[in-house]
Amino acid sequence: MKPYTEYSKEELLSCKAELEQAYKEAQAKGLKLDMSRGKPAAVQLDMGMGLMEALTKGSAMKSESGIDTRNYGGMDGIPEAKQLMAGIMGIQDPDQVIVFGNASLPIMYDTISRSVTHGVMGSTPWCKLDQVKFLCPVPGYDRHFAITEHFGIEMINVPMTTDGPDMNVVEKLVSEDMSIKGIWCVPKYSNPQGITYSDETVRRMAALKPAAEDFRIFWDNAYAVHHLYDEDQDELLDMIAECEKAGNPDMVYEFASTSKVSFAGAGIAAMAASKANLDYVKKSMTIQTIGYDKVNQLRHVRYFKDMDGIREHMRKHAQIMRPKFEAVEDVLEKELSGLGIGNWVKPKGGYFITFEAMEGCAKSIVAKCKDAGVVLTKAGAPFPYGKDPKDSVIRIAPSFPTPEELAAATDLFVLCVKLASVEKLLEK
Amino acid sequence: MKPYTEYSKEELLSCKAELEQAYKEAQAKGLKLDMSRGKPAAVQLDMGMGLMEALTKGSAMKSESGIDTRNYGGMDGIPEAKQLMAGIMGIQDPDQVIVFGNASLPIMYDTISRSVTHGVMGSTPWCKLDQVKFLCPVPGYDRHFAITEHFGIEMINVPMTTDGPDMNVVEKLVSEDMSIKGIWCVPKYSNPQGITYSDETVRRMAALKPAAEDFRIFWDNAYAVHHLYDEDQDELLDMIAECEKAGNPDMVYEFASTSKVSFAGAGIAAMAASKANLDYVKKSMTIQTIGYDKVNQLRHVRYFKDMDGIREHMRKHAQIMRPKFEAVEDVLEKELSGLGIGNWVKPKGGYFITFEAMEGCAKSIVAKCKDAGVVLTKAGAPFPYGKDPKDSVIRIAPSFPTPEELAAATDLFVLCVKLASVEKLLEK
Repeated sequence: MKPYTEYSKEELLSCKAELEQAYKEAQAKGLKLDMSRGKPAAVQLDMGMGLMEALTKGSAMKSESGIDTRNYGGMDGIPEAKQLMAGIMGIQDPDQVIVFGNASLPIMYDTISRSVTHGVMGSTPWCKLDQVKFLCPVPGYDRHFAITEHFGIEMINVPMTTDGPDMNVVEKLVSEDMSIKGIWCVPKYSNPQGITYSDETVRRMAALKPAAEDFRIFWDNAYAVHHLYDEDQDELLDMIAECEKAGNPDMVYEFASTSKVSFAGAGIAAMAASKANLDYVKKSMTIQTIGYDKVNQLRHVRYFKDMDGIREHMRKHAQIMRPKFEAVEDVLEKELSGLGIGNWVKPKGGYFITFEAMEGCAKSIVAKCKDAGVVLTKAGAPFPYGKDPKDSVIRIAPSFPTPEELAAATDLFVLCVKLASVEKLLEK
Repeated sequence: MKPYTEYSKEELLSCKAELEQAYKEAQAKGLKLDMSRGKPAAVQLDMGMGLMEALTKGSAMKSESGIDTRNYGGMDGIPEAKQLMAGIMGIQDPDQVIVFGNASLPIMYDTISRSVTHGVMGSTPWCKLDQVKFLCPVPGYDRHFAITEHFGIEMINVPMTTDGPDMNVVEKLVSEDMSIKGIWCVPKYSNPQGITYSDETVRRMAALKPAAEDFRIFWDNAYAVHHLYDEDQDELLDMIAECEKAGNPDMVYEFASTSKVSFAGAGIAAMAASKANLDYVKKSMTIQTIGYDKVNQLRHVRYFKDMDGIREHMRKHAQIMRPKFEAVEDVLEKELSGLGIGNWVKPKGGYFITFEAMEGCAKSIVAKCKDAGVVLTKAGAPFPYGKDPKDSVIRIAPSFPTPEELAAATDLFVLCVKLASVEKLLEK
């Protein structure tokens, strides 16, 4: 296939005419599809309906520690739920885990909010500082960036490599600037690229020497058990253990949930950290809550039982997700390979495929898709302040539509990529 | 009965000797009872176990609005849960309600926290102000005071009357001091006194003319449906409507939960307010969460159905609670009536009995009880900073022990009241 970049102006113009005709026809189809958010499909949620019967009228409702899960108390979660969440995160000691409510996003929000109002383990509250900055590996998760933006924290882009964030950049910035208080990381099957941090990246991250004593790594292990394949799975080092080994036990907060294991809206979520960090978190928790929903914690443990149960359940998820990823990847491969107008990586897990278009084309592609009935994540969303400096990254979320719908949506997508690219090339 | 205050010194000394003997015997019994927290008894929680089967494998999981409760979305709660919580709060319009997670305390905490970091509907964030103050009707709920203390908000005591907070004091302070940003209220079956605000109090409260534009009434309607009697029930005006009528639609946030209806640890909770307030709250919510546990919301609606269901269920709670209150009240009446060493009110609802001892005796009574195996709420707890200026208020929580245990615990309590009072009188 001849790359578009080698087309003559005449060839581009004739190509454009053809594409415009095809686009008109596509518009006429009246598609109405959504590839914008990493939302599980109903069939995935159906798989978890056994949860609804994990507890019945006659169930024993006490936790292993003897607490009645229906009553007040047990603020930091029941032991068996800590064990389950530790297993998901690959952490050895369940005592390093607090189990919270139905999602991890509020835990992260609260962690930032608490640092703003009360500081971190005795440090100056961030609201009393002139400047607070966060490092943001890009592309990344828009909801992370929304939290830091909400609290007026300045965000600094750090480029992602195929091994994780560019550690040369991270090490330099963190050691020089004491207003840098944290970094957002999705270390496994990253959102949106599906990259898993290499062992070297994890170790360098754990060995950081930050100028700020209250610098923390926000390790959002959202896709810890979300493999697409039975065999070819990524492995991530245990960051809590690595930070301990590196003499930085307090430098990391890890987060995880069962949002994409059980129910997106009704799972359980957890935070893991050193004892010193957890003790500090509990000081605020004891003011904020008498305890999260321990009945739902118990329900999850009774249903999934242990990590074998989780793994088995996630294999079923993979059976649903895999054909969807493949449907998108097949069309991309068939239609765009060799044209020189975009790159993508086939992830081995997670919820997204990242498409990197020619510079200056992402907004145009997303707009064209929208005008023909396919909603994609807003261009720029995976970047702080919604600003993609190259206007090239598009996040594709294949989880919600069916494989057939995805094939139709991706057909339109590649058409829009071609059309936007030709238009861009003709501008030159 | 001759009041202790009329005893001669000799009479007091002889009385003291008898009481000390009785106290020694009581200590020897090795009681181990807890009347410290408003915790439902297991038998009350058992009554709600039908909730565990309100949703099953085959249940339709969509809300009335068509949202799959298991998935992301529907941030402000499903419509039928809004309706149920509006009913509990006695509010006309369910659109004035947001349904949150498992308890109302975190909603209140988050409301304060948001005001500290972001202000209230455009006002200066409280963390940027030199001084922020809250009015605290006393005695009141210790966890309210803990939140304001946690955020460094100065608390000002306002005396309670049998009609609610002393409105002359409230009106004066609020209109003069623009650093006063809020007031904590438990308007129905108040914690701890069981007082319901009179219509006049509610109307005066709704008509306040605060100096601070961002002054808000924190209306914690925690015991809205928690009557002890079928007939003799308190009624509370709808504060949201009263504030509207008074031209102060934005001045109140109302809170409620099913913590003491369904499960203390796994209920659903809500906030009600004007559209302008809710719109502002949602701006932060959309950063903090993708949505609370809508499955548990649906579970509650399927189980309780409507206000008739709630009322019927609360009648069963009352059948369990009433004998407990009566067990305590009977002993108080029989043993202390006429002695002039303490007062108490028989509440018609809620979770507490407040005992007002002679000045300077509360700490001593609580300590004596503890040393003989009965744990009461810490003396001072119902006051800001844990400081009861008169050292006289003791909160008794009769919900958790059995009536028999309560009778035994109250026998000890009155003994300790007598002993502490005699000791105090002998000091003079």
